[in-house]
Amino acid sequence: MSSSDLLLNLNQKALSLLQEDADKIEKLIEVQMANLTTRQCPLYEEVLDTQMYGLSREIDFAVRAGLLSETVGKEILSKLERNLAQLYEALNAKK
Amino acid sequence: MSSSDLLLNLNQKALSLLQEDADKIEKLIEVQMANLTTRQCPLYEEVLDTQMYGLSREIDFAVRAGLLSETVGKEILSKLERNLAQLYEALNAKK
Repeated sequence: MSSSDLLLNLNQKALSLLQEDADKIEKLIEVQMANLTTRQCPLYEEVLDTQMYGLSREIDFAVRAGLLSETVGKEILSKLERNLAQLYEALNAKK
Repeated sequence: MSSSDLLLNLNQKALSLLQEDADKIEKLIEVQMANLTTRQCPLYEEVLDTQMYGLSREIDFAVRAGLLSETVGKEILSKLERNLAQLYEALNAKK
C-alpha cells in the first residue's frame, strides 16, 4: 500500500469511528425525545453532557494527530449540538 | 516516505499527543499534592475525574484507530491512576 493510500485509509477509519460514537449520542437524544411525554430520567442530561465531552476530546485528538480536518470535526459536534438544543427546548416546553 | 515510515510517524505522533495530555493531569495532581497542607479546592477532584475520562476516551480512540497498542494505553492510564490514588490517600489522611 502506498503512503497516500495508507493515510487515506487511516483518515477514513478515524472518521468512521468518530461517526459511530456520534451516532450513539444521536440515539440517546432520539430515545429521550421519544420518551418526552411518558417519563424523564434526570440523569439523562448529565450522561449526554459526558458523552459529548468524550466525543469532543476524541475529535480534538484526531485533528491534532492529522487524521481529521478541523471543519469536519466541528460539523460532527455542531450537528449533535443542534439536536441537543432541540431536546432541551422540548424538555423546557414541558415544564 | 514509505508506508511503514508513515505509520511509525503517526504512531509516535499519537503517543506524544497522549503523553502530553497525561503530563497535564500529572501536573494537576502534583499541584494539589503540593497544596495539601495549605488549601484544598473542592472542585479539584471533579476536574481530575473529568480530565481522566477525557484522556481515557482519547486513548480508546487511538487504540481503535490502530495508532496505539492497548498495553501502552493501559500503562499511561494506570500510572496516572496510581498517582491519583496517592493523592486521595493523602487527602483522606488529612481529614
